[in-house]
Amino acid sequence: MASNIVLSNIEYKVVGTRPIRHDGTDKVTGRAKYGGDFSSADLIHGKVLRSPHAHAKIKSIDVSKALASSGVLAVITGEDMPVGKSSDVSQANRFAAQRLIAQDKVLFKGHAVAALAANSSHEAETALALIEVEYETLTPVMDVQASMKDGASLLHDDVTTTELGEKTDKASNLASHIRFEMGDLAKGFAEADVLVEHEFTTATVHQGYIEPQNATAMWNADGQLTIWTSTQGAFTAREEIATALDLPVSRIKVVPMEIGGGFGGKIPVYLEPLAALLSKKSGKPVKMLMPRADVFECTGPTSGTHIKVKMGASKDGKITGAQAYLAYEAGAYPGSMVSAGAQCIFAPYEIDNMVVDGYDVVVNKPKTMAYRAPAAPNAAFAAESVVDEICEKLGIDPIEFRLLNASKEGTRRVDGPTFPVIGNVETLEAAKDSEQYKTPLTGTYRGRGVASGFWFNIGLQSSCAIAVNADGTINLVEGSADIGGTRASIAMQAAEVLGIPAEDVRPSVGDTESVGYTFLTGGSRTTYATGFAAHDCAQEIKQKMIERAGTIWEVPHEDIQLVDGVFQHKSDPDLKVSFQELAGRLNSTGGPISSQVSVDPRGAGGAFSTHIVDVEVDPETGKVDILNYTAVQDAGKAIHPSYVEGQMQGGVVQGIGWALNEEYVFDDNGRMENSSFLDYRMPTSLDLPMISTVIVEVANPGHPYGVRGVGEVPIIPPMAAIANAISHATALRLRHLPMSPANVLEAIWEKEGK
Amino acid sequence: MASNIVLSNIEYKVVGTRPIRHDGTDKVTGRAKYGGDFSSADLIHGKVLRSPHAHAKIKSIDVSKALASSGVLAVITGEDMPVGKSSDVSQANRFAAQRLIAQDKVLFKGHAVAALAANSSHEAETALALIEVEYETLTPVMDVQASMKDGASLLHDDVTTTELGEKTDKASNLASHIRFEMGDLAKGFAEADVLVEHEFTTATVHQGYIEPQNATAMWNADGQLTIWTSTQGAFTAREEIATALDLPVSRIKVVPMEIGGGFGGKIPVYLEPLAALLSKKSGKPVKMLMPRADVFECTGPTSGTHIKVKMGASKDGKITGAQAYLAYEAGAYPGSMVSAGAQCIFAPYEIDNMVVDGYDVVVNKPKTMAYRAPAAPNAAFAAESVVDEICEKLGIDPIEFRLLNASKEGTRRVDGPTFPVIGNVETLEAAKDSEQYKTPLTGTYRGRGVASGFWFNIGLQSSCAIAVNADGTINLVEGSADIGGTRASIAMQAAEVLGIPAEDVRPSVGDTESVGYTFLTGGSRTTYATGFAAHDCAQEIKQKMIERAGTIWEVPHEDIQLVDGVFQHKSDPDLKVSFQELAGRLNSTGGPISSQVSVDPRGAGGAFSTHIVDVEVDPETGKVDILNYTAVQDAGKAIHPSYVEGQMQGGVVQGIGWALNEEYVFDDNGRMENSSFLDYRMPTSLDLPMISTVIVEVANPGHPYGVRGVGEVPIIPPMAAIANAISHATALRLRHLPMSPANVLEAIWEKEGK
Repeated sequence: MASNIVLSNIEYKVVGTRPIRHDGTDKVTGRAKYGGDFSSADLIHGKVLRSPHAHAKIKSIDVSKALASSGVLAVITGEDMPVGKSSDVSQANRFAAQRLIAQDKVLFKGHAVAALAANSSHEAETALALIEVEYETLTPVMDVQASMKDGASLLHDDVTTTELGEKTDKASNLASHIRFEMGDLAKGFAEADVLVEHEFTTATVHQGYIEPQNATAMWNADGQLTIWTSTQGAFTAREEIATALDLPVSRIKVVPMEIGGGFGGKIPVYLEPLAALLSKKSGKPVKMLMPRADVFECTGPTSGTHIKVKMGASKDGKITGAQAYLAYEAGAYPGSMVSAGAQCIFAPYEIDNMVVDGYDVVVNKPKTMAYRAPAAPNAAFAAESVVDEICEKLGIDPIEFRLLNASKEGTRRVDGPTFPVIGNVETLEAAKDSEQYKTPLTGTYRGRGVASGFWFNIGLQSSCAIAVNADGTINLVEGSADIGGTRASIAMQAAEVLGIPAEDVRPSVGDTESVGYTFLTGGSRTTYATGFAAHDCAQEIKQKMIERAGTIWEVPHEDIQLVDGVFQHKSDPDLKVSFQELAGRLNSTGGPISSQVSVDPRGAGGAFSTHIVDVEVDPETGKVDILNYTAVQDAGKAIHPSYVEGQMQGGVVQGIGWALNEEYVFDDNGRMENSSFLDYRMPTSLDLPMISTVIVEVANPGHPYGVRGVGEVPIIPPMAAIANAISHATALRLRHLPMSPANVLEAIWEKEGK
Repeated sequence: MASNIVLSNIEYKVVGTRPIRHDGTDKVTGRAKYGGDFSSADLIHGKVLRSPHAHAKIKSIDVSKALASSGVLAVITGEDMPVGKSSDVSQANRFAAQRLIAQDKVLFKGHAVAALAANSSHEAETALALIEVEYETLTPVMDVQASMKDGASLLHDDVTTTELGEKTDKASNLASHIRFEMGDLAKGFAEADVLVEHEFTTATVHQGYIEPQNATAMWNADGQLTIWTSTQGAFTAREEIATALDLPVSRIKVVPMEIGGGFGGKIPVYLEPLAALLSKKSGKPVKMLMPRADVFECTGPTSGTHIKVKMGASKDGKITGAQAYLAYEAGAYPGSMVSAGAQCIFAPYEIDNMVVDGYDVVVNKPKTMAYRAPAAPNAAFAAESVVDEICEKLGIDPIEFRLLNASKEGTRRVDGPTFPVIGNVETLEAAKDSEQYKTPLTGTYRGRGVASGFWFNIGLQSSCAIAVNADGTINLVEGSADIGGTRASIAMQAAEVLGIPAEDVRPSVGDTESVGYTFLTGGSRTTYATGFAAHDCAQEIKQKMIERAGTIWEVPHEDIQLVDGVFQHKSDPDLKVSFQELAGRLNSTGGPISSQVSVDPRGAGGAFSTHIVDVEVDPETGKVDILNYTAVQDAGKAIHPSYVEGQMQGGVVQGIGWALNEEYVFDDNGRMENSSFLDYRMPTSLDLPMISTVIVEVANPGHPYGVRGVGEVPIIPPMAAIANAISHATALRLRHLPMSPANVLEAIWEKEGK
């Protein structure tokens, strides 16, 4: 069930409708070209040799036998990385290079140690086995608590703690500590009638996109490098590759292939610089595909975390103070996204007194990367569980409690900014009014849970070009990878301006040389920022066409307006021409019309989401079934409601997986034991009910149509909502993810004293 | 030897230099992707069955055996052409379709009759032989004189003569007759002291590009058609395909592959619509490559012609009147370019009294198409031969004679327009002053010839997009196919505006969905019109960057200027920032900068050329050797002088081939007997001396840098110059092309009474 609560009253012709996506046929017929589909004459194949150890020194690498092996054309090791150990390289750039291929030390099982390219995949595979690497193994540290212990094995000699912005000189696995605070926390807790404080942990989980990483590189004889890859951001990939290879960005062209899921995980590059170096050495185009096990073991999952939350409330249900300790795994190199978790954790609430500490901790796992609303779901799992327990203790309905404490326009966030117009209250009201919430849940071992989430969303740079075709259609080139239907949502925003149907726009995704700079698809920014660019570009086109009509009619163009796809004189009813007709006349009346616009909009609007879930727990097996699920979310304005609903449902599904099953299981030596889709248990359609959605529309004043981002916030509430539901079903508060059958059963047994 | 006579005194930093072309490495290393290099999964292969008869009715076609043949997935005939015999189709569109594949009648040997696609080329070839076609042969007409005779076999029932704009109802092979006239010709001839009148013929010749025609088509399940092809104009190809297939242009995307020569011959489509229909039937991408013999027999060569010219002059060397009769082969369907020949024939001269008649005549040869300055070289061969004979009779130096009669600013052309600033006189002066002309030629059977030529050049629609990279380079997307180095010449015009080196521009050629409408590469328009678009787009970029600098410095942007690649405040010397530095700051100061501009410039400037050639004739064999050749030409402004010189030399070489060797040889049934590069004798480097060039620069006021087109005019004078040189070597006036050894020897024998 899907519903749509519209709070803005502007009528649109195209925005808000549900046209078929422009790339739909290509996607369902298999004609769309993904990175793995790339082929070219002379193509050779690259493979990566990866470390079997989670933590070890590399004593030597002997590639001579591999190089002599049949069909092998190039071999590289960390020594070939232009940005490497040299002391004039910044630590950040050195780490960025070492993340791609180890130099001196391997820091996680699967860390690239060498790569080679051969005429066939088989020859490459055979030759890999001939590379001889001598390691001195070291003790791995596998979670933040172990890693932060005194005497823990250190990953880096030169990572020293940054304590609240101050660099210390103590080598440590704790890379940095940040703090956000507001008000007087002690006073807040003193005013509380009820105080709840708990510890939580969440396991490492992966984005689980279907398409593995891939890259083909051609290092041309003139030094120009072309990369074909499935990426969330062709321009940001270009920057990363440029940094690793020490090249100016204009020496690199990144051609974005279609992308089979990303969720943040296809922002960073992995194979691209290796393929480039192999191509440089061999003089041939080099294609590399990542095996599934490598995707799990060597690309960036999200952080495993250790979180403590303490909240206090008065007996009338007002939160008086809140505190959080967020320790996030960064993986092998510094840079978890803990600060985003710290920004979001308490954002659904107006709280006067808050302290949030964030700790970025290196461990012997692959460098963590963004995963849909990165860092926020873990934090929300803890905070929203604590909120639920407070509601329970106070006997207040969890939605009423949230409404009582809801952040709204003017509320200050713990990290500083004050909210502009937001839809938190409207989202909560819609949740309260939803079919599911209004329908009582009955039955034993059944429970209902509620949780909220906030994601700030981002703006940043986007470009869009439009050219008018003689048949009245337009071509639109955008720089944003289309992961979730943004060709449609961007095209629709241009169509709305010009008064033409969405089908009359031919959108395409440009490479880094065919459209202006566009930041990556992520941060729920694409429909917002690239849509903004499309809107502005369409406005330019509209203005140029109005001027042309003025030239043809010999009237001042100020007297002409575009109404419902017809250019018309404001006072002379005889002077009118449809968009299509005028388009057909352009070439003979002064030439074609085209425009390109780049924007960096600063009005990204935050998104709130409240989820309601009903579960049933099987006390015999510990298995949790999702009976019913409603996701309510403020989209600002849903350009294409189907894709907004799809994003909401997708976020919920990933949240359910994270809540109930997904986790990296490591052996004692830090080797992942479940690196396949069979063993890493993601939910399938058989595990899930239909997810109901309610789109709330509180227009974002920072966008022409009121768009907020929609892709990320729906993954934030599910884990807490499900934990709260399990608690109401079983009277057990589960504070460690995943709440898998084994873990649930163990908790039940513990409670029952078994 | 190359020299450059600069008459404009503007100093440029980039324009006029000779950077290495951006696509040079790709071209010389074989990495550039031509149409023949296209590959994709699932690709099948198309072949065309062609008529063995030059003129025949198709009585029946039976494709059943072919369709049942191994691996065959689709077969088409003329019946499958959406735009076909139907009476609501215009004659022009019907002919355009029938040119691609015959319906009812075949009109030339090699006319497509059916096409099929199979899993392999071999299976396609095998199946072709199984198509059974029953013909009723008709008498072919093979030249304009035979075709215009009463009682000649008619190609079309419904082609009726258009007599000076008036449609007649007489079915005829003469499709139209046009006339340009000025002054009083009878009076002009009456005033003449010398009158010379002769008849000339020229043979059918081919552009002789190295790369054969090719096309791959993918008709997607959603009805969208993508075409990959080597074409001179992706947008015009799109229009032609749209017409043939009765589709709106936005249903078609044409991706221009690199192009291995065109010279006008790759403007029309041949295989593209057939591949599209085969793809529609088979559901798979269909690739078609044209064999070399088909290129000769089935694509459009230039017109064979029958020309009469009569000119009179006073004894002091002033031309008093000129008359021309131009009968041009159209090939199988109406539409030679005779009118261009009529426009150009007398344009180098200021003549008060002129009449030019042009006749467009269908014959049983492939439809003629543009070949470098189409129709003008044939006309100039006749007119410039007559001029030379007048000079000889009057004893006036041929360059002095031309200077005496030279057209200049204000001179009216026979077709109406009055010349703006032109460089005819300056070109003649430069020719007179050239090393070759100043050096006497001695020796027996040696002679020097001079001839001039004019080509009007065209403007029309072009688009260009520019985006600034953070490293201070720019990406430039243009819609013009790059045949002769226009990536460089266009990039340089943008670089000049922005004060950056040519190497800091990354130019690329967009497909029809990635840049605004751009008319074809031809008419010597690309450096002029697309360069104009690049200039204007760069101006927009410059303005946006000036505004950004104003924002950063918090000063009015009107106070900022760009000088030598540095943005600087007009009065505060401390405020300055290089292009590169500002480029690096864009993303953090308001976002990236990009623009796209479409233009339709109306100030294309005509080009004049005067050539000097010294030849030696071997009286034993009739072979003519080119001893020395100087081409002098007004380029307006040579953006990249090397490519201007290359165009001049290339035009001369093609002219030499046309003059001395090239011709279609037909048997009595209209079948070409020399359709291979072995038998169709084009000049090679062994046949040629180094061609000296003198670039004259009389700036075209209709272009920001003064550019005129340069590609076409150099092919106009060679045939006449060589004929005149042979005349001075042998005292024989040869008036029929080619002046091949056999033809020269025959003329020598005839003169000697052998």
